[in-house]
Amino acid sequence: MTEKISFNNRLNMLISNKSSFLCIGLDPDIDKIPAHLKYEKNPLNIFTEKIIEATKDLVVAYKANMAFYESESINGLETLQNLCTLIPKDVLLILDGKRGDIENTARKYVKAYFSDMNADAITINPYMGYDSVKPFIQDAQKGVFILALTSNPGANDFQNLQVGKDSLYQYVARKALEWNKNNNCGLVVGATDMEGFEIIRHTTPDLPILVPGIGAQGGDMEKVIQIGRDRAGTGMLINIGRDILYASDGKDFAEKAREKAQYYIKEMTRLVHTSWNYI
Amino acid sequence: MTEKISFNNRLNMLISNKSSFLCIGLDPDIDKIPAHLKYEKNPLNIFTEKIIEATKDLVVAYKANMAFYESESINGLETLQNLCTLIPKDVLLILDGKRGDIENTARKYVKAYFSDMNADAITINPYMGYDSVKPFIQDAQKGVFILALTSNPGANDFQNLQVGKDSLYQYVARKALEWNKNNNCGLVVGATDMEGFEIIRHTTPDLPILVPGIGAQGGDMEKVIQIGRDRAGTGMLINIGRDILYASDGKDFAEKAREKAQYYIKEMTRLVHTSWNYI
Repeated sequence: MTEKISFNNRLNMLISNKSSFLCIGLDPDIDKIPAHLKYEKNPLNIFTEKIIEATKDLVVAYKANMAFYESESINGLETLQNLCTLIPKDVLLILDGKRGDIENTARKYVKAYFSDMNADAITINPYMGYDSVKPFIQDAQKGVFILALTSNPGANDFQNLQVGKDSLYQYVARKALEWNKNNNCGLVVGATDMEGFEIIRHTTPDLPILVPGIGAQGGDMEKVIQIGRDRAGTGMLINIGRDILYASDGKDFAEKAREKAQYYIKEMTRLVHTSWNYI
Repeated sequence: MTEKISFNNRLNMLISNKSSFLCIGLDPDIDKIPAHLKYEKNPLNIFTEKIIEATKDLVVAYKANMAFYESESINGLETLQNLCTLIPKDVLLILDGKRGDIENTARKYVKAYFSDMNADAITINPYMGYDSVKPFIQDAQKGVFILALTSNPGANDFQNLQVGKDSLYQYVARKALEWNKNNNCGLVVGATDMEGFEIIRHTTPDLPILVPGIGAQGGDMEKVIQIGRDRAGTGMLINIGRDILYASDGKDFAEKAREKAQYYIKEMTRLVHTSWNYI
């Protein structure tokens, strides 16, 4: 892999090479981690380290949910900074903060996440439009996943509104396509509205999509695998969080997390049916 | 003031009592603060402390822009935590992070900002809909300012889209009104599109609005004062950031910031013309 490869190409190569779409969601909830860790100085950090250690050879990406770190103050920030150093070179790190602000502010986020923490990609809320996204996509090696259709009930409030012939989420997807000059834009598309999911895949057949909603949120992985891949059979990350992180609440939590990750990868492979198209 | 007063009532009482709409935007840019502070252990913290010290008797609110703290790592987080302790009881603290995420994640932000940092309000991006806002508005004493029409060029990309008879920003404003059961929802409405500004004020005559875009971004304060107040003459915060923070780059920066804040308050008073309506 050269230094100059775009984020989207890198993502797709990793998916091909690993024959997997697995992204583990690092949402470590201090109230849910195994009890025996709670007496450690920084339980969140130990938990996160062990999970990464046990799964890093299996995954294409980790998605760290910023809120879970922000809610633990200095311990949380130190955990986040530490985890950024633990990700192997052939695994992507996505910081999930759903940020979006004016250009002058967005540049500060670029410094925090791309320069200081060396994340490969972040999630972005599109509501403030192009100049709020631009600072994040100027370096082709760094990527964004722009919220299009999310997996929560509130997705109906605005994302499904009719805007001319399109739904708002479809309009957002078209904009992302337009902004993808450096081949580093992707979309967040939840697995809970499969009609919308299919419309977005049809609208943007080759943009990478990050798919929450499988596992604890109840989305259907079979349909996601059938519909969600790009035309080369890649272009998709399926995020699994709680189902892997809390596979066990005992001392074997990391081992059980690994087993659960392996289960998901097997399940993905089984569901692909057809042979992989290597790009 | 009792313990049980809603955020919006508290905001309006403070505006009345202080005869001011001034909110100082705490966006301390490490590259712009006076040179003599750069040799301090935590320049951001000293700068922020001095600005608050010099202006806290003048303002209705401070709005701290999270990105500027996040981009300075542990120093930034410590500065943010420290500033939260420096705000007097009769001044509101708004954390400006434009967050928005699924309920389970939003609750973590509630802990971080409302419980741990004791902020009075935060800014919210509405794209993910009601359940992403709900955790922030359950305590009537804590408030939200929901992005409706922002002050950046990208506001045109989505916020101005036609949704039935409304623009999307107007539709968002109507939703905020619907969500305002606890009297703690407000809107962010930029001063750079005065037509949209007026439409929103007409749509929601009594929701508080937080107005960026005056000062460095070039909005017209006279028009904002004419149009932006609620029917009681309150209901508005005008955010001024860079123009006050960087009034001087010398050792007198705090003194000059105070003078600039005083200038803005005088200007606001002059522009109100009519006498205040006390609620």
